[in-house]
Amino acid sequence: MEQIKTYIAEHRDRFINELVELLKLPSISADPAYSKSVLDTAESVKNALISAGCEAVEICKTKGYPVVYGEKIIDKTLPTVMVYGHYDVQPPDPLDLWTSPPFEPVMKKTELHPQGAIFARGACDDKGQMYMHVKAVEFMIKNDTLPCNVKFMIEGEEEVGSDSLADFLEANKEKLANDIILISDTGMMANDIPSITTGLRGLSYVEVEVTGPNRDLHSGIYGGAVPNPINVLSKMIASLHDENNHITIPGFYEKVAELSAEERNHMAEAPFDIEDYKKALDIGDVYGEKGYSTPERYSIRPTLDVNGIWGGYTGEGAKTVIASKAFAKISMRLVPDQDPDEITELFSNHFKSIAPAGVKVKVTPHHGGQPYVTPTDTIGYKAASKAYEATFGKTPIPERTGGSIPIVALFEQVLNSKTILMGFGLDSDAIHSPNEHFGVWNYLKGIETIPYFYKYYTELSTTV
Amino acid sequence: MEQIKTYIAEHRDRFINELVELLKLPSISADPAYSKSVLDTAESVKNALISAGCEAVEICKTKGYPVVYGEKIIDKTLPTVMVYGHYDVQPPDPLDLWTSPPFEPVMKKTELHPQGAIFARGACDDKGQMYMHVKAVEFMIKNDTLPCNVKFMIEGEEEVGSDSLADFLEANKEKLANDIILISDTGMMANDIPSITTGLRGLSYVEVEVTGPNRDLHSGIYGGAVPNPINVLSKMIASLHDENNHITIPGFYEKVAELSAEERNHMAEAPFDIEDYKKALDIGDVYGEKGYSTPERYSIRPTLDVNGIWGGYTGEGAKTVIASKAFAKISMRLVPDQDPDEITELFSNHFKSIAPAGVKVKVTPHHGGQPYVTPTDTIGYKAASKAYEATFGKTPIPERTGGSIPIVALFEQVLNSKTILMGFGLDSDAIHSPNEHFGVWNYLKGIETIPYFYKYYTELSTTV
Repeated sequence: MEQIKTYIAEHRDRFINELVELLKLPSISADPAYSKSVLDTAESVKNALISAGCEAVEICKTKGYPVVYGEKIIDKTLPTVMVYGHYDVQPPDPLDLWTSPPFEPVMKKTELHPQGAIFARGACDDKGQMYMHVKAVEFMIKNDTLPCNVKFMIEGEEEVGSDSLADFLEANKEKLANDIILISDTGMMANDIPSITTGLRGLSYVEVEVTGPNRDLHSGIYGGAVPNPINVLSKMIASLHDENNHITIPGFYEKVAELSAEERNHMAEAPFDIEDYKKALDIGDVYGEKGYSTPERYSIRPTLDVNGIWGGYTGEGAKTVIASKAFAKISMRLVPDQDPDEITELFSNHFKSIAPAGVKVKVTPHHGGQPYVTPTDTIGYKAASKAYEATFGKTPIPERTGGSIPIVALFEQVLNSKTILMGFGLDSDAIHSPNEHFGVWNYLKGIETIPYFYKYYTELSTTV
Repeated sequence: MEQIKTYIAEHRDRFINELVELLKLPSISADPAYSKSVLDTAESVKNALISAGCEAVEICKTKGYPVVYGEKIIDKTLPTVMVYGHYDVQPPDPLDLWTSPPFEPVMKKTELHPQGAIFARGACDDKGQMYMHVKAVEFMIKNDTLPCNVKFMIEGEEEVGSDSLADFLEANKEKLANDIILISDTGMMANDIPSITTGLRGLSYVEVEVTGPNRDLHSGIYGGAVPNPINVLSKMIASLHDENNHITIPGFYEKVAELSAEERNHMAEAPFDIEDYKKALDIGDVYGEKGYSTPERYSIRPTLDVNGIWGGYTGEGAKTVIASKAFAKISMRLVPDQDPDEITELFSNHFKSIAPAGVKVKVTPHHGGQPYVTPTDTIGYKAASKAYEATFGKTPIPERTGGSIPIVALFEQVLNSKTILMGFGLDSDAIHSPNEHFGVWNYLKGIETIPYFYKYYTELSTTV
């Protein structure tokens, strides 16, 4: 398998240039204005799979953006790995905070990426990490080292909740049948501390609208006498956490699976420096639920965060107005065994119940996702662990992280498949933020590591 | 003086058309993008004063937008009335709530304006009410019925706090010397209930900025562990009122002059229907400081309202982000004897003191204004009262209202002049809101009433 190193050395520039081309497409699934770019991106993913040597490559319609499918079946008796990834990206705003345009990729060196990193929206999440798999499979096919079957399923709605996928999976159970699902859409602790994500948080995302008076009013003539929807919304949002930053929605924690002291101690052993953390974010102090450490707060505990708020006059200068409406986008990260639909309903009922008589409240659910925890005693996990050992020379650390990949739970339900999360990005790669980037070293290290997963997974499966 | 009726009948259409032309100019002082229109508006006000028969008309430079000045001095031994008004207007947004474009005036009938009202930004506040004086003076000059001297001082920064006026008054004390100042920039209770505004609230307007992490963050990876500036800002805003809707800023009420039981009883006698009020605004209930009636809440009590709030992702769909910054525009209406600068400082110190360790807070003062109460036992008030009696057949009710005209207190300080507030608009005319309008009946009634003020004011002054 040493050939992979040589192959990467030979094709390094092409691997980078192909990714750069893909990153030039603004495939923003949240914004209808970019729908053509999203579809163009599906098209180029299709072509990438074909040139990698995949067969039966097709763009599969869904009720939303399409899924790009491709496969290489070498022997039906051998195990099948299915790669999942997504070609859509987060909106890039706020644009003014980008040091270079989000869809004009540039290479820059950073402290953590001395060999350079590619700066562009989607560089890490998930075009870059998805494309590692395309290139790793290209290598295995072209060098006849593919030890088992592989299927690709690359979607275009991950950043907006993968709404079409449940139906798609149901309708394509046979085509998507596999033994293990492989995803690179998470991170690792550091370039010298490989880790495998064994837990993901779920998500409930809602938009709220508070309406006071039926029109904007002069704050002098009416101020103090009518419900101001912005003041009211602020009060309502504030009341969702108590003084210990526990969430106050009745029943919210009911189904939260508390970790054992042993599990928490084990977590506490993972390398984490609170001072570096604060320094990297330039915050005077961390902030969160009383009784839990920072790594616990962002991994094993549920949260409630306002992702956006707006209302009234937000232009230049001063306008003495009382707005008719105020809005907020609010998301809750969930942990086992919370159910997104249940939580959305608990939120909605509670939020309406705390509104004062003077206002009207509307709650619109956006999307949700199930939390997920993977076992570490499976063939899949062991194969991944050995793959990292082969290329990093270290045993990776199992890590529960805070992000959500709603489809992972769905895979288990519908396809009855376990998922292995091999992430090669870093938290500092600023995914979902301005100046998202992906280290070239990480990109190539991923391409190098992935073939080992196929090797060990096939060996372990067939020797069982 | 009956000639005024005839004159109005003869020139009705011209009076309306001239106002409509003035309303077509988007003189939005808050938005630098409109500076040329603001200056063009000053130009047309100048021309209007000239054609009304004023002399020494000029556009006077200030460090901001200019003041338009004009005068008609008939006899230095006679009293001098100075008319104050403003030619700038509030920003029109939210534009989508206008039933017709804000700067394309149209005439529509409404329930309260069966003879029709002119719909446009500035129709009532203040172009329409300011122009009543130009036309009333035109009548008196052309018909040789002007009984005293008159000066016009029409400014262009009222909607952004009249920042340049203090200096302008100081620099032009002689030119602006007068015996009484007359302003139509307030309202009256109803077309059949004339009222004279005897009290105005002051204003302190600030913009706040809360900064959490140094960049937008992925709410999954960081959610629950870092201070979310939107959640924090909501909590801080919520804490500014207690459960009785008293404002919690230490010292905020210290200088509030409480009214006597007698004064409050007298207020309570003014016609006010709480059900009509709620119905007109389509609110389930009123909302405000415990222990005070609705009319008290918007007139004799200070308030704190958020006029605008923004932060994070406010576009379409869902973005799972924790914003780096959140912002709000907050204004406080003040009553005698609160001082805007003192209150701004109290707010600023308190707001910073309640910020959690994890965030940085910036408070930027926008503008302020002194509260004001006029006595009702002056010649000016009596003249105004008699003028309404002459044209409405009713004695007007003295009324303290919630709006602010910062310059009124300034006039008293610098020019040592009292101000009479003769408003002809209605609260329902939607000033500062979409679909602002001004009743044609009110416009013409103002033109009819104003000359009587000059008549009685001169008589009362000279017979003293």
